[in-house]
Amino acid sequence: MQPGDRVRVDRGDVTNEGVLLPSTTHDHLVVKLDGGYNVGVDRAEADVEVLESGARDVDGGADAGGGEASEITFDEDLPTISLISTGGTIASTVDYRTGAVTAQFDAEDVLRAVPDLAGRANYRGRVVANILSENMEPAIWRELAEAVEDEIAAGADGVVVMHGTDTMQYSASALSFMLDSPVPVVFTGSQRSADRPSSDNVMNAVCAVEAAKADHAETLVCMHATQSDDACALHRGTRVRKNHTSRRDAFETVGGAPLGIVDYEAAAEAGADGDAADAAIEWNREPLPRGEAGADADLATDLESDVELVKFTPGMDPAAWDYLDGKAGVVIEGTGLGHVHTDLIPRIEALVADGTVVAMTSQCLAGRVCDRVYDTGRDLLDAGVVEAGDTLPGTAKVKLMWALANTGDAADAMGRDLAGELTAESQPWR
Amino acid sequence: MQPGDRVRVDRGDVTNEGVLLPSTTHDHLVVKLDGGYNVGVDRAEADVEVLESGARDVDGGADAGGGEASEITFDEDLPTISLISTGGTIASTVDYRTGAVTAQFDAEDVLRAVPDLAGRANYRGRVVANILSENMEPAIWRELAEAVEDEIAAGADGVVVMHGTDTMQYSASALSFMLDSPVPVVFTGSQRSADRPSSDNVMNAVCAVEAAKADHAETLVCMHATQSDDACALHRGTRVRKNHTSRRDAFETVGGAPLGIVDYEAAAEAGADGDAADAAIEWNREPLPRGEAGADADLATDLESDVELVKFTPGMDPAAWDYLDGKAGVVIEGTGLGHVHTDLIPRIEALVADGTVVAMTSQCLAGRVCDRVYDTGRDLLDAGVVEAGDTLPGTAKVKLMWALANTGDAADAMGRDLAGELTAESQPWR
Repeated sequence: MQPGDRVRVDRGDVTNEGVLLPSTTHDHLVVKLDGGYNVGVDRAEADVEVLESGARDVDGGADAGGGEASEITFDEDLPTISLISTGGTIASTVDYRTGAVTAQFDAEDVLRAVPDLAGRANYRGRVVANILSENMEPAIWRELAEAVEDEIAAGADGVVVMHGTDTMQYSASALSFMLDSPVPVVFTGSQRSADRPSSDNVMNAVCAVEAAKADHAETLVCMHATQSDDACALHRGTRVRKNHTSRRDAFETVGGAPLGIVDYEAAAEAGADGDAADAAIEWNREPLPRGEAGADADLATDLESDVELVKFTPGMDPAAWDYLDGKAGVVIEGTGLGHVHTDLIPRIEALVADGTVVAMTSQCLAGRVCDRVYDTGRDLLDAGVVEAGDTLPGTAKVKLMWALANTGDAADAMGRDLAGELTAESQPWR
Repeated sequence: MQPGDRVRVDRGDVTNEGVLLPSTTHDHLVVKLDGGYNVGVDRAEADVEVLESGARDVDGGADAGGGEASEITFDEDLPTISLISTGGTIASTVDYRTGAVTAQFDAEDVLRAVPDLAGRANYRGRVVANILSENMEPAIWRELAEAVEDEIAAGADGVVVMHGTDTMQYSASALSFMLDSPVPVVFTGSQRSADRPSSDNVMNAVCAVEAAKADHAETLVCMHATQSDDACALHRGTRVRKNHTSRRDAFETVGGAPLGIVDYEAAAEAGADGDAADAAIEWNREPLPRGEAGADADLATDLESDVELVKFTPGMDPAAWDYLDGKAGVVIEGTGLGHVHTDLIPRIEALVADGTVVAMTSQCLAGRVCDRVYDTGRDLLDAGVVEAGDTLPGTAKVKLMWALANTGDAADAMGRDLAGELTAESQPWR
């Protein structure tokens, strides 16, 4: 049997009939039922009969559907939300992070998988990529930013980006720098696939749609706030980090509270008839104001790809830095307030002399670098290192790629806040 | 004026006379008074007169005092605690992290700087190194482990290691793998130098000494548990991480509660007459049992230095991995459950085929890697990657250096718990 075959699956007392989908696990079969739902079945205990080979093309590939927007019935009283997929889909029992079924992604698929979304908005569906998020690349960030701009120009009142969790923080940072959006851009995903009882996909999707309908213009990550199904946190895209490999509340705003919290029950109820559920969102800081309807999104998608992030650890061989010679930019993840072994300082001095922008961040993650306190730090400043404040290391890498391509002075830009990534001394974050 | 000069410093109504010490900041002078205390004086508002040039040698250099143990009056009713310095000193107003005054480090200096330590123990003082901790190197880990073993053999009932905070977690990990100690080995340090009102040095020192006197045999990091002066946390050396650049409670046990909490006031009072303050320590898990007095510490200090840690980020150029060819070991800090871009998998396969041990950790930090869930992970396992469970990336690097030199099968060792670094699935940590 192959993906695309029409099959009948018997397991225990239950029989399912439908089209076999590609599966992310060897342990489960995933079957798309005729009603549109997908179901996962334990392969070990299942009897499978192939009813029709190749009944449906389920192998669309990375570009299938790319750029194609799909629409369903339009209700002019509802806001319009664009659902953009970068790999995997909320409309499947297969995790966001598998690309295999993305070719079928459209607004109808989403509504079938998450019926709770119905009535909240007019949905536009769009596929930008079809990848595991560890395979996300700067070129796709650019396509994603362009797709978001397109959707806004086409009238979207908010955009939801469905994304694998592995590199969501990098992509949310990239969009934050590339796009000055007049409407909400909300990344969401799932830590547990929809065929698991503990899946977080429905609550994350509903909260993301409500956050995209709300009155602000932030680029956010919307994921479970706790291990319960009670609330989602809204994290500014440049301050968020996946801090656990598997927990549903893995995403956290580093060094402070999230920008806001969505009460799931209240948001689900208030937003079900298409109204905005702003009252269900508690903001910890004033969010950026929503722009005029139809306002243009400023877009600057150029990126300098010749940038590396290097993490310093004790015992590191200075020769391990040879490959940095000639780079356009280097982000160092130093220790403490922003330090490396003294032996590496002459190498940094040479890099800077050669034109490389070298920015310092801290592997502590929380707190800001400050190289004025200790001798090593002062030597680093003398060598030409730029302090990235409290910018997260991963965000700093994305920022440096963007700043080298879009600002006249990337070194200066690394010391300034561009998109909420570098917070003021007097408050934990913007 | 130069460090070592005898000076008189007038500032406002206050006059201080003593020997000028090297200072870690450009803003302050540090003067060692004749009574033994050090004082920091704002340079901008001070008038300084040099009374005698070069009155004292304060520039001991890295090896000064190395290996020399000093003792003061011995009370046979008190336990014996060895205070080992690796750079900077608790006996100075200058932060632990400056090496400049370490040459003067002895037990008397410590008691002068932290009078609250008096009466708690017989103290032995020892200097192993005199460096900023970002300059810590594997060779010094070995000297430190040997010094600790020496001190235990000489009768120490517990050892306190004073260490800069930047790389304390790496050194505590190294000692955890190198040394199977029958007595407590307690790392402590200071996030704020003693000349600042918010300094954490006194409480950390008192709690560390009491933790070293207590009934267990853990290798711990003892630092502020909160931003208040009420308690220190005891973190297992292999599970701890500096998670903030400047906060006094920067150190945290990743993925769980600390091993124990020391109530400062209770410990200070109970231990002041030399008694053990065990009642002031609340253990969250049963600590390793203290060995027999005088029991040998098993020591295995060999390290394979040809090991690198590499952090994967989106957009990473596969050519950036060229320098890994031929390495004895590589620790990858992957995304999520332990992933890298698919393009890097053939490079990993080639490394493993060439004999490199490649271990996977996660940049999420909390949670465990699991490469059986997604296609990329399974490809990584097929390529020969070893999963390091929930071992922290920095700890995994130290462990791989040790395992390559001390076990017959380092790849196998990376998947097993050796020193509390890799916790069981069913509990957050050992």
